[in-house]
This record gives sequence, C-alpha cells and structure tokens, in this order.
Amino acid sequence: MDPRINIIEKRLEKVRRLIAVSSGKGGVGKSLVASVLALTLLDKGFEVGLFDADFTSPSTHRILGVRRLEIREEKGIVPMHVHGLKYMSIVAFSGEETLPLRGADISNILIELFSTTLWGSLDYLIIDMPPGISDATLDIIRLVRRSEFLVVSTPSMLALETVEKLLRLLKELKVPVVGVLENMKMGQSFTIKDRINEMGVSFLGELPFDLKVEEALGDVDALAKTAFARKLAEIVPQIISPHV
Amino acid sequence: MDPRINIIEKRLEKVRRLIAVSSGKGGVGKSLVASVLALTLLDKGFEVGLFDADFTSPSTHRILGVRRLEIREEKGIVPMHVHGLKYMSIVAFSGEETLPLRGADISNILIELFSTTLWGSLDYLIIDMPPGISDATLDIIRLVRRSEFLVVSTPSMLALETVEKLLRLLKELKVPVVGVLENMKMGQSFTIKDRINEMGVSFLGELPFDLKVEEALGDVDALAKTAFARKLAEIVPQIISPHV
Repeated sequence: MDPRINIIEKRLEKVRRLIAVSSGKGGVGKSLVASVLALTLLDKGFEVGLFDADFTSPSTHRILGVRRLEIREEKGIVPMHVHGLKYMSIVAFSGEETLPLRGADISNILIELFSTTLWGSLDYLIIDMPPGISDATLDIIRLVRRSEFLVVSTPSMLALETVEKLLRLLKELKVPVVGVLENMKMGQSFTIKDRINEMGVSFLGELPFDLKVEEALGDVDALAKTAFARKLAEIVPQIISPHV
Repeated sequence: MDPRINIIEKRLEKVRRLIAVSSGKGGVGKSLVASVLALTLLDKGFEVGLFDADFTSPSTHRILGVRRLEIREEKGIVPMHVHGLKYMSIVAFSGEETLPLRGADISNILIELFSTTLWGSLDYLIIDMPPGISDATLDIIRLVRRSEFLVVSTPSMLALETVEKLLRLLKELKVPVVGVLENMKMGQSFTIKDRINEMGVSFLGELPFDLKVEEALGDVDALAKTAFARKLAEIVPQIISPHV
C-alpha cells in the first residue's frame, strides 16, 4: 500500500463526505455543477470545501469570480476562503500561464496537494475532477479512498457513451457512484435516463441549458438566481441523502 | 533527436498537409469539426485521411457511423476506408471497453500508430486531437513536425481562456496555427473574434449551434445537410488556402 494514502486519509479524516464531480468527456458543465453544488450546500448551512483538480482546464476560479489566488503555508497549505467556501485550485500555483504538464507531473502535484492541504473539518469536500478517465482520475480513485462519484452528462449520445465507459470503470473498481446528472437539457430531446438506470446507477435529474449562466460567470449571486442553479438546488437532497 | 521522428516523417511524406484539430477544453465540438471538415474536403475532390487521436474520448467513429472497426496489417497498419476517407482510431484497438490508459501508455500507442499506419498519398490528414494540453498534444507537436493547428472554441469565456493558453503554448513552440473557429454560436452573444485577433491569430468564422447535428450523428448524408456543415463548407477555403 502506498504510504501516502495514509497521510491523505489523515488529512481528510475530518471531512464527512468527499464528492468527486466527474464526466466522461469535457464541456458538459462539470465545473459549473461542482461550483454551484458547493455554493448550494453552503447555503444550506453545511461546511464546504471545493478543490479544483481539473488541472488541464481549471475553471472554477472563473465561475466563482476569484480574483486573487493566494495560498498560505502553515504546517501545510491553508485553503483560500471564497464566498464562505474553503477553496483550492492548481491555478494558485500555476497562475494564468501555459501549463503543459506531463501526466507524471500532474500525479505528483495532485498527491502533493491532497497530502498537504489543511481542509480541517468539513461536511462536504467537492472535487472538480479532470474530465474522462485520465491519470489524475485514477490517482484520485487510488489515493482518496472515500470519494463518491457524481457524474455529469449531457443529452448527447457522444457524452453518454463516454459516461457509460466511466461508470463501467467505477463499477469495476468498486467506487461508489452517487448518480448521474443530465445537464444542458433542451426540450424533449433524447433522454439518457433509461440507459443510466439500466446500468444500475441512479439518475438524479435534468439541468436546463441556460444561457443566463454565461452572463453570471464570476458573480455567485447572479449564478444562484439562474434556472440552472435553482434546479440543481432541488436535486441536492438526493445527492446528499445517505448513499444506498 | 528522437529517431522515431524520422520514421514518422517517412510514413507521412506523401501527405501534403497535416491539420490537427484541437481545442482548449473538451465538449466544444472538436471531433465534429474534424469529421465534417474531412468529409467536406473529400467532397471537394481531395484525398483525405482522418485519424482519431482523442484517446480519452474517441467519438469520430460515432459521428461517421462506423459500425465495425477492423484494421489489417501489411508491413504496417492499413487504415480503414469509411465513406471514402482513410480512417484510423484507437477504438480499432481498444474496442468499446473501458480504457484507463496512463499518460505513458497513450504516448506509446500514439507513437506506434503514427509510425506504423500506412496513410500513403493524401492531400489532407485531419487529426482529431485530444482536448487541451495533454501528454498526447505535446507528443504530436514533437513527433508530427509538419502539423498545423486548427483550434475550436465556443463563445464561452471558459472555453476562450483555455484556447488562449493553448495558442500561447503553440506560439512558444513555433507551431503554425491555421486559425480559430467559434462553434456553438447562438444569437448575438459575446464574440471571441477580437480576443483571437489580438493574439495575432486568424479568426476563421462562426459555426451555429445546431440541434439537428445530434439527430444526424452516424449518418454522413444527414450530417452534410445540417446548417453546421454548410457553414463549415463556406469556411473551408480559408482553412486550405496557403498558410501565411
């Protein structure tokens, strides 16, 4: 057993639940779901952390409107405080620069961040995962043992197929799956609900395609008022109800 | 110098132009642009190859409606023939199975495929790149020396920021950029044109958000009739005009 798993488990021992927001492919709204989920849980009175582990295209800092990413070190790394969330992102280290990281570098940074960040006591740590099945995904599954996956899809067949691959992998690795959210829903299009249920996975609901979200990026109050956020808030009880 | 670069260059010596269709983040329609671009060039009478190098979420086989992915070996790998295209995809090897490849595995498969596939004589080889700046992106830049990048964005600020990162990296590495396409355009939303031009990169045009595309996936004739494909066909002359 990798000795770092013990260190990471110790770092996360006061975190009640770890929810890894994931997707089969990019561009389905994973970071948006992760950010708004974190804000919604906070609004319900929970203590919440958000960790942006999407190293190839980190975007939660844009969604939340974080202007300065500064971290303090103090026998570990102290997460930032953003709108009441404890927040950590690779951007705090990399800045806005081009970051052509090799897979092995990403793994090292990920392990480093998980084993040094002082999350303290939290009800929920939301992890914005890299899209798809990458080295970083496999690392998090291996190192952050208590993580439960919340998977985001769109109604597109192309997104669904990659989600099915991810779900098969998670099943094989015996990783718990909270369920699947269908984002960017428009009209009565093809639904992925049946295909998700056939795999024995909870279908949590549909989130609307909402043009207002783009205008609200960076403004958490405007974001909370979007149809997208209101619908997600309705679904949250299903996400946080004890996992079956 | 990596000796495999010579082998790859020899394999590709009869390919007139190599166009790597890339994006800053996933889900912007990169694979759709790559597939429809390949079909449009074919329609104009060119000899065209399409290589799906998006190992983490290959989807061109779905877009083109390829039912059986079979390859033949004959002093190298013979690409499939799909609707007149020479076609190669990782799926020919991996099948529909979960494929949790590590970065180093992806690099090896990529090098293997580039150094063994017998593309023969082509006017254009379109490469559907992995999204963002990954190991595979860096490998292709290093190994496939004549590749020119065609970058796909959406009107979203989140997509644009990742595109700007990618463009900065390409500039730093002195990789030629054909230009940027703005996909999923709806109404008079925020335009990325000015920001792209400010970077000294050609803005090639806008492609509409088109719900018909989803229904047409897998049916190349239906695909060619979509507003998306018709608009892309109008832009193609700019893509294939001699690079400045």
